[in-house]
Amino acid sequence: MSHPLFEKHRTTLDSALNAIRTRGYWSAYPEMPSPKIYGETAQADGKAAYDAQLGREFALDQPGRGGAVKTECSPYGIALDVSYPKCEAQALIAAGIAAMPGWQAIGAEGRAGVCLEILDRLNKRSFEIATAVMMTTGQGWMMAFQAGGPHAQDRGLEAVAHAFKEQAEVPAEAIWEKPQGKNPPLVMKKHFEVVGRGVALVIGCGTFPTWNTYPGLFAALATGNAVIVKPHPNAILPAAISVRIAREVFAAAGLDPNLVTLFVTDAPAETQALAQHPAVASIDFTGGNVFGEWLYAHCRDKQIYAELAGVNNIVIDGTDSYKGMLKNLAFTLALYSGQMCTTTQAIFVPAAGIDTPEGKVPFDQVAADLGAAIDKFLADPAVATAVLGAIQSPDTLARIEQASRGGFGGEVVLASKKIEHPEFPQAEVRTPVLLKCDAVSESSWMEERFGPIAFVVKVADTNAAIALSERVVCERGALTVGLYTMQQSVIDAMTAATWRSKVALSINLTGGVFVNQSAAYSDYHGTGGNPAANASYADSAFVANRFRVVQRRYHV
Amino acid sequence: MSHPLFEKHRTTLDSALNAIRTRGYWSAYPEMPSPKIYGETAQADGKAAYDAQLGREFALDQPGRGGAVKTECSPYGIALDVSYPKCEAQALIAAGIAAMPGWQAIGAEGRAGVCLEILDRLNKRSFEIATAVMMTTGQGWMMAFQAGGPHAQDRGLEAVAHAFKEQAEVPAEAIWEKPQGKNPPLVMKKHFEVVGRGVALVIGCGTFPTWNTYPGLFAALATGNAVIVKPHPNAILPAAISVRIAREVFAAAGLDPNLVTLFVTDAPAETQALAQHPAVASIDFTGGNVFGEWLYAHCRDKQIYAELAGVNNIVIDGTDSYKGMLKNLAFTLALYSGQMCTTTQAIFVPAAGIDTPEGKVPFDQVAADLGAAIDKFLADPAVATAVLGAIQSPDTLARIEQASRGGFGGEVVLASKKIEHPEFPQAEVRTPVLLKCDAVSESSWMEERFGPIAFVVKVADTNAAIALSERVVCERGALTVGLYTMQQSVIDAMTAATWRSKVALSINLTGGVFVNQSAAYSDYHGTGGNPAANASYADSAFVANRFRVVQRRYHV
Repeated sequence: MSHPLFEKHRTTLDSALNAIRTRGYWSAYPEMPSPKIYGETAQADGKAAYDAQLGREFALDQPGRGGAVKTECSPYGIALDVSYPKCEAQALIAAGIAAMPGWQAIGAEGRAGVCLEILDRLNKRSFEIATAVMMTTGQGWMMAFQAGGPHAQDRGLEAVAHAFKEQAEVPAEAIWEKPQGKNPPLVMKKHFEVVGRGVALVIGCGTFPTWNTYPGLFAALATGNAVIVKPHPNAILPAAISVRIAREVFAAAGLDPNLVTLFVTDAPAETQALAQHPAVASIDFTGGNVFGEWLYAHCRDKQIYAELAGVNNIVIDGTDSYKGMLKNLAFTLALYSGQMCTTTQAIFVPAAGIDTPEGKVPFDQVAADLGAAIDKFLADPAVATAVLGAIQSPDTLARIEQASRGGFGGEVVLASKKIEHPEFPQAEVRTPVLLKCDAVSESSWMEERFGPIAFVVKVADTNAAIALSERVVCERGALTVGLYTMQQSVIDAMTAATWRSKVALSINLTGGVFVNQSAAYSDYHGTGGNPAANASYADSAFVANRFRVVQRRYHV
Repeated sequence: MSHPLFEKHRTTLDSALNAIRTRGYWSAYPEMPSPKIYGETAQADGKAAYDAQLGREFALDQPGRGGAVKTECSPYGIALDVSYPKCEAQALIAAGIAAMPGWQAIGAEGRAGVCLEILDRLNKRSFEIATAVMMTTGQGWMMAFQAGGPHAQDRGLEAVAHAFKEQAEVPAEAIWEKPQGKNPPLVMKKHFEVVGRGVALVIGCGTFPTWNTYPGLFAALATGNAVIVKPHPNAILPAAISVRIAREVFAAAGLDPNLVTLFVTDAPAETQALAQHPAVASIDFTGGNVFGEWLYAHCRDKQIYAELAGVNNIVIDGTDSYKGMLKNLAFTLALYSGQMCTTTQAIFVPAAGIDTPEGKVPFDQVAADLGAAIDKFLADPAVATAVLGAIQSPDTLARIEQASRGGFGGEVVLASKKIEHPEFPQAEVRTPVLLKCDAVSESSWMEERFGPIAFVVKVADTNAAIALSERVVCERGALTVGLYTMQQSVIDAMTAATWRSKVALSINLTGGVFVNQSAAYSDYHGTGGNPAANASYADSAFVANRFRVVQRRYHV
C-alpha cells in the first residue's frame, strides 16, 4: 500500500526525478506571481496573512517553551515586532528523536509524499512567505517572490527527488541464495532498513531564509531525520511560517509535528551548544567563514554541509556584444545590491584591453563603461528600488561606506548612491560601488566584500586572468565564475581551469541569463569542491550520507 | 565510441549493477581455488610467482625513488626479505596530479572498463596474491585465497559499480530551454563534467591487505582520482603486487601508470605528513583508533572513510538448536584467531540462562559448553591450523597472554593453547581464550581486545542484554551484532535497537553462515553510523563525494 500523499504527488516527483537526470528546464512551481495561476485574491490574501502576524507573538506550539525572542529589524525600515517562542534546545532534540521512528516507519515513499505535500502548501502560501522574505531580507518584491517562493520550493523538491532516488536504490528485502555444489544452497532472507542519521540542524542566513534553508531541510527530512531549523535572527518569519506549515502537514498525516521545529536565538553560543549536542547528526549552514570554520573545527563527528564566503569572478578576454555584456554585468552587480552568494566581485580585464568586433577597448574604458552601464540601468528610481531592494545588514552598509572612501584600496569608478524608496522612506537603498585596481593589490579585491562592491582588476593578459581566477577559486572559494571571449582556445583554457578549481562557469552571457542565477534541477549550486561550499545543491552526495542502511538477516 | 575495456567488461559490470540493486547472491570471481576454474597449473604458478619475489627488491618503476624499505615479518615465521622502493611522497602526489586529466578525459565508462580490467587481472593472479596475503597476515590458506582474492575483488567491483551508477546519473550535457511567454525562449547548452576530488590516499591494515584496501582504491579510481596506496608495514607484498598489476593495465591502455602508486614506510609521521598534504583530497583508512582519531582531528578538510575498533557482540536469549549455535559460535571465534574486524568479542547471556526446547541452560553451562565446543572444533591440529592461521602481530600475542593471566579481569573458561604448525615450525598459532564475567565489569569486556579473546557476559535478562548491546554499539562501535532467540518479540526489540545503534544484525545463525562474514553486493560491511566505521562498503555515500560535477553553460 502506497502512502496516499505519495500517490497524490507521484506525478510531480516523477517529473522532478526526470528533471534531475536530464537537467533541462523544468519547474514544479510557477515563478510568475500571476493571479491566473495563484488566484485572483492570492496577493491580497498573502499580504493580509503577513500583516496579521505583525506586532504579536507567532503562534507555534512546540515543546520546551520558555520566553520569547524578538530580533528582526527590516531593511525597509518598518517595524515587524513579531516575537517567537523560545524553546529549550534539549526539548526540541528530545522531541525530534521521539518523532523519528514513526517517520522511519512510513518509508522513503511516505516521506517523499509528505515532503511534497509540505512543498505544495508552501507554494500556495508563496505571497505570504514572499512578503515575509522581502521585509526581513530587503529583497525587491519580484526576487522575494521568485527566489523566496517557487525557486526555493523547486530547490526543496530537487533535494527530495535526490533523496528519494538514493533511497529507492536500496531494496527493502532480498533472498540471498548461495550454491553449495552438491549440497543444498545457503539461503538467507535479508531486510534493509533506511534509517535517518539523527536530528538535523539547519542554520539559515539573513539574505535567503528559504532558498538556502529548504535544500538542507528537505534533504534531511526526506532521508528520515527530524530537523531543527535555526533561522538568522533577522530573517525568522519566512522560516517560522515554513516550519508551521510543515508541522500542520505532519499532524494532518498522523505524524509527529516535532519532526520539524524552530529554534530562535541571536546568541551564537546557544547555536554552538545546539550544534555540538551529541544527538545532532548533521548541520546545514549558510553564512560567514567565522562560524563555518568553527563548525568544521568543533563538530567533526557530524555531517556538515556548509556554504561560506567566496570571491566570485569573471574573466573578460573579449566579446562580440560589448553593450550586451555591459548590460548583463550591470544587472548582475545591481540585483539585490550584490547581496547574493553568487554575485561577481572581481572582474579581470587585461591591461591591454579587451577584444571586440570594433577593436580593442582599453582597460580604463571597460571600467568606465561598466560604471556608466550600472548608472544608466539604475537611473529610473522605480527600476532601481525594484532591482536593488534594500541593504540587509548594517555591516554591509558600513562596507559600502568604507569602499566608497577608498578603505579597501582601488580607485572609485562609480560611487554608491543612496536612493529614496517611494514606499518605504526608511529603507536603506544603495547603488553599487565599482572600483578598479591592479591585480597585485590582492588585499583590496581578494577577500569577500559582501554587498554591492565590485572591482575591475587589471591583469597582464588573458592567460594571467585565467590563472588568477583559478588561484582565487582554489584559495578563497567561489560559487560562480564567468568568461567573455570570442576565442575557443580561451574557452578551452578557462574550462580546464574550472575543472581544477571546481567552479561553475558561465560563458558569454549577454542576454537574459545572469552569472548569479542558478536554476533548480539543472544548475548545480556550488560544486562542493572549493572553499566557498563543501557541498552542492543538490546531488547524490548532498543526500546519500544523511541516512544509513541497517540490515538484518536470517536463514529461511 | 565506448572505451574498448568498457565493452569488454560490460556484461560483468551490468551484472554487478543488478546485484547491488537486488542484493541477492552474486559473485564475479569464483571463490573456490579449483584447477578447473583457475587452470591446472594456477596454484603452482602462483606459488612460483610468489617465491620469485622473495629475498630481493620488488620491481616497481615509480617516480621519486629514494632508498628501499624492508619491514615485513611473517606470522608463519618464515623470511620474506622483500625490499620495496621508497619514493618521495611529493613525487608520488605530483605524478598523481599529472595523471588525473587523462583519467578524467576517458569518462566514467572508460574508468569503469579499466578498473574491471585491473580486477580481472588481479583475479587471474589470485594464487600469487593469496600466498602473499597468507604469508604476511597469518591467515590460513583457504581464507587467504577467498578473502584475499575473489572476495576482495568482488568488494572492489562492488565499489566500481556504485561509482559508475552515481556518475551515470550525471548527463554529459543538456539543452535548457526556458519559455518566456510571447518572447523567444532562453536557450542554453550546459556541459556537466565529472571531476575527481584529487589525489586519494588509501591506508591498508595488517590483517586484510586487499579486502580492506580494494574498496577505497577502486571507489577513488573509478570516480576519477589518482590513488596512493600506503600498505601496513607488515603486509606490503599483496598491495605491491596489486599496485603493479594496476600500473601495467594503465600503461597498456595508454594511460599514465602513476594513477596508482605505492608509498611504503613504517614511520607513522611520514604517513601523517602525506595525509595532511594539501593535494590529498580523500583518505581511506582501516586500523586502530589512535591513528583514526588523529586523521579525524588533523585532516578535517579531506573526505575520510575510516574503519576503526569496535566491540562486536551477540545477545543469546534462547535457541532451538543449541548445538548448532555452539558450533557456529565456535567457528566464528576460531576463524583467523578472531583477528577479523567482524569477530564477536562479547556474548551476552542472561543470568537465569537461555531457553532451549530442552529447557533452560544456565549461564555457567552456556559458557562451559561454548568453551568445550571451541576445544572440540580445534581438537584436530590440521583443522586448527587451517582455521586459526597464525597471530599477525606481537601486540595480539601479548593480549592473549594478558587475557589468559586474567589481566583483563573475568574468569578463564577456556585457556589459549599454542599449537605447532606442521609446515611452519616458527608459526605463532594460538587457540582462543574464552572468559566469563559480569556485565558490570565493563573495563574487562567493553574495550576492543583485538584477537582471539571473547567474553561471555552475564546480564540481568534479555531486555538488559539488548539495551547493553545498543549502548556498546553506540559508545564503542561495532560492525556486527548477533541474536539467538525463539521469540519474535525479542527479534523485534533487537531489530529496533540496531536501528538506533546502526549496526548489522544476524539472527539465529546455526548453519554455514557466520556473523563475521559479509558478502559483497548483498551485505553492507559497516553502516557508517556508529564509531566502528564512518562509512560502509559499499553504498552511494561511499562513492558520491569522491567526485564533483563542474558545469559550464552558454547560449545557443
